[in-house]
Amino acid sequence: MTESQRQLPIGVFDSGIGGLTVLRAICELLPAEPTIYLGDTARVPYGTKSSAVITRYALNNARFLAARGVKLLVIACNTASAAALPALTERLGVPVLGVIEPGARKASDVTRSGVIGVIGTRATVASGAYLQALRRCVPDLTVHQKPCPLFVPLAEEGWSDDPVTYSVARTYLSEWAGGRMDTLILGCTHYPVLTPAIQAAVGSGITLVDSASAVAKTVAAELSRMSLSAEPGETSPDHRYYVTDVPDRFREVGRVFLGYELGDVEQVDIEPS
Amino acid sequence: MTESQRQLPIGVFDSGIGGLTVLRAICELLPAEPTIYLGDTARVPYGTKSSAVITRYALNNARFLAARGVKLLVIACNTASAAALPALTERLGVPVLGVIEPGARKASDVTRSGVIGVIGTRATVASGAYLQALRRCVPDLTVHQKPCPLFVPLAEEGWSDDPVTYSVARTYLSEWAGGRMDTLILGCTHYPVLTPAIQAAVGSGITLVDSASAVAKTVAAELSRMSLSAEPGETSPDHRYYVTDVPDRFREVGRVFLGYELGDVEQVDIEPS
Repeated sequence: MTESQRQLPIGVFDSGIGGLTVLRAICELLPAEPTIYLGDTARVPYGTKSSAVITRYALNNARFLAARGVKLLVIACNTASAAALPALTERLGVPVLGVIEPGARKASDVTRSGVIGVIGTRATVASGAYLQALRRCVPDLTVHQKPCPLFVPLAEEGWSDDPVTYSVARTYLSEWAGGRMDTLILGCTHYPVLTPAIQAAVGSGITLVDSASAVAKTVAAELSRMSLSAEPGETSPDHRYYVTDVPDRFREVGRVFLGYELGDVEQVDIEPS
Repeated sequence: MTESQRQLPIGVFDSGIGGLTVLRAICELLPAEPTIYLGDTARVPYGTKSSAVITRYALNNARFLAARGVKLLVIACNTASAAALPALTERLGVPVLGVIEPGARKASDVTRSGVIGVIGTRATVASGAYLQALRRCVPDLTVHQKPCPLFVPLAEEGWSDDPVTYSVARTYLSEWAGGRMDTLILGCTHYPVLTPAIQAAVGSGITLVDSASAVAKTVAAELSRMSLSAEPGETSPDHRYYVTDVPDRFREVGRVFLGYELGDVEQVDIEPS
């Protein structure tokens, strides 16, 4: 691999803002890597849509990033990973990683009881992608799944600590408290923001697993395997942000998800015209 | 006007399913009129998006319906009416009606105190469209506005009677209870489904106004003015439904909004390709 290929950015896309939790984990583990993030805020959310529509939108996003020259593409969205990873792997000339496989591997390492819960959007749960990935890790796991469609709007509304969020979490999840389940996969990049309410609903005996750090480790391993890890430079690497709708709210809510101020955020039109 | 023009359908579009409450009111008032409904379920919701993006999507929808030959077009979505009515009026060769003006007129007829509340999506409230329409009716009204972003997902989730919905409504609206406000505009076609929770939060002294019946009356008046009202035929008029994502959930939740079974629902691709 040439030096110039090593210095290409990692491309990361999400339906909107949630994938910034994954970007953050990647940047923390791999501080020398430049990144390009695309949030498809004009068409968010994906979790209520069909597999065919999600795949079409994911291909738009992936092609936008591929055209900007990325060495590796990360689908930082559970819904899009569940629906579109095979299509993207097949049609792009760039290695592609999703968030399902790393999250499932981590959960199957954590569980002692062999009973794992998965929560996510309607589309992620309906796809059965986590179920299949968990079974590939450990064939005889018991897996319970539940869609939690109100969690994304609650996170976007910034109501992480509101009593309403605790009530919604109890309505969805209290049936799992006190049972044999010991591990719960937060199968949506928005959900880590709601960790206190989710933990309160299921009780302290269940370990919550999110994919972000597991994805970052997989990215590091993959870049190393391909000899594509960036060399630390004298200056900080470049981090670019693109969105498909106006950037104001993305910049504002993004600070919560990323933990620090975003730099420039540029609006782009990626829909075929 | 020729006989054949009178028998053309009324076109109705919405970002998704909420506009069926408007369609229902039109069909009840004008049972001889054939209709075509388009729900842009692949890109729903509009209420979190910018005016420019909403206008682009609304133009796609309107052109799809215009190409099928409609005599009148109804934007059965507050967000799209607020953002895109002028653009659609200018660019389509068909008369276009939105839901804001009829709702504002009805509310200004109802109020005695002159203090009116408006709730809607972030985009509808930010547009100020209701404020302007109300001021055109009665210049010295006092208008209070508030976005209620969680109401659409709660309605879509079918939690109309859940205690959580009552809590969310109280959080958003209880500050208006017991004050001088006597009229509240439900500025989103999803909100009528949540009437009990909204009424409980604001108290019985405030009259809730939704646009559906007012829009139906405006449609009837406009068709009559243009001599385009359908003649009652020997068979029931045709009602067609199109959606931009898979029809299953639309058909299922649509029954709740429409009050009866939908006929055939066809999936179409309206995005430029």
